[in-house]
Amino acid sequence: MITREQCLYWDQEDELKKFKDEFALPEGVIYLDGNSLGARPKKSLAVAQHIISQEWGEDLINSWNKADWWGLPTRLGDKVAKLIGAEQGEVVISDSTTLNLFKVLSAAVKIQAEKFPERKIIIAEKDAFPTDIYIIEGFIDLIQKGYQVELIDGVEGLARALEKDVAVVVLSHVNYRTGYFYDMSSINEQIHSKEALVIWDLCHSVGAVSMDLNQSGSDFAIGCTYKYLNGGPGSPAMLWVNEKHRDQFWQPLSGWWSHKKPFDMAQHYEPANSIRRYLCGTQPIISMSLIECGVDIFLHADMQKIREKSLKLTDLFIQLVQQECSEFGFELITPLEHKYRGSHVSYRHEFGYEIIQALIARGVIGDYREPGVLRFGITPLYLGFEDIWNAVQHLKETMLNSEWKNKRYLVRGEVT
Amino acid sequence: MITREQCLYWDQEDELKKFKDEFALPEGVIYLDGNSLGARPKKSLAVAQHIISQEWGEDLINSWNKADWWGLPTRLGDKVAKLIGAEQGEVVISDSTTLNLFKVLSAAVKIQAEKFPERKIIIAEKDAFPTDIYIIEGFIDLIQKGYQVELIDGVEGLARALEKDVAVVVLSHVNYRTGYFYDMSSINEQIHSKEALVIWDLCHSVGAVSMDLNQSGSDFAIGCTYKYLNGGPGSPAMLWVNEKHRDQFWQPLSGWWSHKKPFDMAQHYEPANSIRRYLCGTQPIISMSLIECGVDIFLHADMQKIREKSLKLTDLFIQLVQQECSEFGFELITPLEHKYRGSHVSYRHEFGYEIIQALIARGVIGDYREPGVLRFGITPLYLGFEDIWNAVQHLKETMLNSEWKNKRYLVRGEVT
Repeated sequence: MITREQCLYWDQEDELKKFKDEFALPEGVIYLDGNSLGARPKKSLAVAQHIISQEWGEDLINSWNKADWWGLPTRLGDKVAKLIGAEQGEVVISDSTTLNLFKVLSAAVKIQAEKFPERKIIIAEKDAFPTDIYIIEGFIDLIQKGYQVELIDGVEGLARALEKDVAVVVLSHVNYRTGYFYDMSSINEQIHSKEALVIWDLCHSVGAVSMDLNQSGSDFAIGCTYKYLNGGPGSPAMLWVNEKHRDQFWQPLSGWWSHKKPFDMAQHYEPANSIRRYLCGTQPIISMSLIECGVDIFLHADMQKIREKSLKLTDLFIQLVQQECSEFGFELITPLEHKYRGSHVSYRHEFGYEIIQALIARGVIGDYREPGVLRFGITPLYLGFEDIWNAVQHLKETMLNSEWKNKRYLVRGEVT
Repeated sequence: MITREQCLYWDQEDELKKFKDEFALPEGVIYLDGNSLGARPKKSLAVAQHIISQEWGEDLINSWNKADWWGLPTRLGDKVAKLIGAEQGEVVISDSTTLNLFKVLSAAVKIQAEKFPERKIIIAEKDAFPTDIYIIEGFIDLIQKGYQVELIDGVEGLARALEKDVAVVVLSHVNYRTGYFYDMSSINEQIHSKEALVIWDLCHSVGAVSMDLNQSGSDFAIGCTYKYLNGGPGSPAMLWVNEKHRDQFWQPLSGWWSHKKPFDMAQHYEPANSIRRYLCGTQPIISMSLIECGVDIFLHADMQKIREKSLKLTDLFIQLVQQECSEFGFELITPLEHKYRGSHVSYRHEFGYEIIQALIARGVIGDYREPGVLRFGITPLYLGFEDIWNAVQHLKETMLNSEWKNKRYLVRGEVT
């Protein structure tokens, strides 16, 4: 039996607990949705005020140089690089995850088309966050070269599909719904043994798990900054390219920010010989600048320790739901084995949507994903062990009181 | 002879002068670069504080519905529509101008490919802001269907080029360098008489000149919000599609925000039957929200009156440079005829770069564009007639004192 006292003790012993103070969280709320929209770093308000009043208002156009707005994509990219096992100069922050997928997919397909022109299959996952599939479909429909998207189901599906003429594989490092966490190194090996290339979608893993993109031999990676990295709503996304692929081809979203000499106003495109060739047009400076507030907190913590605490907290959540709520029919869909678990825990329940709404009314904010999935994001920098205890107690009371039966709920319409 | 007193009188009589108070401008600065980065609406600071503290910090994920973050692209699009002669539901705000050009170019090329498969020429302007050319080149290089970009020079060049197999024409409504302003209706007629389609880049015209996209029979338009519309550095861009083209094809940057039923998490893409099909992925909410501050000021003014004052101010600037600075060798490259003049005035001068730097040192902020172009943006909502008088006096003194000869200047590197 785990007790509240045990949780309080773990909180006392927690090396990361001081970081909670860096975040502004509403009173009386247990926020289990940082895997959808990360909490607000306190510093973000003062930073935004400075950018708006001083950099925009006072320094105006001069801020492109003076505040190095122009350098933000790589300056922030270099910071994120440290969290994902990438080198300096290998990462940019830019645009959105979806757009960044289009860029790296185009590059990956071009590389493969030269070596293996007969390979026309792009693998994606049935259970991927759908925008990945949609952008592959958009790409295929645009270039009209006979490419096909093949949707697979899990690791076994991948093995079977790789027997065919596969050019590129797009995988979610951590699945947005189930929390399933791929073993990057062994999957890369499997894909490379068939001479396919891999694009990792890190949306639900960057800032949530430790990884090493270079050491694992990955090819491309994209991911968002507004979930675990706490960059702010819709903050621009990250993009990493293995150095060996980087300068091989243009990516087709070849705007002037990716030009070799953007200020020469040359009449023809020539891509920068650096990761900047994966940029496109002018970036939303205010939204982009705020990313630094969240990422800087991570750089003061330690990704390994964050991962350790994440596993302790998700273990605790799973054990407590088992201990306190076993009679209510929650079916765990997140892997028990640490090796395959990201940093959120999901359950299937017939009345998942209604239960999530009832929990939110109690100040426990998780979210719902079709079909029937209750999703609880565990963010070690601003959640403690007692928070998990309290969250599960709320869940128990919600079920005991059948609160979810009595509510009238909003039309479904939330955002990943 | 125009006198300072005359300018002061015009300021007194100016119906729009009250709007200057809506903007935060630095003390002692005459800002003639609002065509590059618009000045800061005072309201933007409080709005940002609210979004960051309340919507992000307190309401968290709930803000997607409660603050209607999800609806921002169309809500803001509907406001911008009123400034460009578009209907409600015809405009979205999203991504960057460059990315939006890729979207509408793909759509335009697809429409034409069905009707006129032999047409493989995409016309752009030699003197366009280069990102337009670069993205066309990226598109052509990606789809590999034999398309070619043909760069034209001015209206005569357009007429000649239209004799060939032209699919699509991309034109800057107001040229970023010279300030040349196309007559949209007659150009549309000319292009349509050859059954080509037109994409208007409104970057230097939206908020600067009056226009009517529907009445003039335009096909597509894109443009940025951080220049005349004062949306903030790199704020997301606008996109308009003529209703007759809108639902004909997917655009290939088909992210989940453009899906018919984005929250169903469907496994295949189906585009929304609305202008939302031109969205892609998650938008930078803070940068996007601030656009409203600038656009709302325009909605309280009147685009026709703004245009009238713009012409008075640019006339005054040109006359005063002629009157006060005729001996210094400035060559006007902006059209004298109102019909062909946007809202900035440009001169060529051998030492253009150095003169601009010397002016900036005096607090008169214009900008420099290769080759040898001094560019002065005239923004009627926060500039008055005396400002123009003073700016030209500074220019005169800079030249009389040869101040530009004595300066050590920064490496060139500013942003459009």
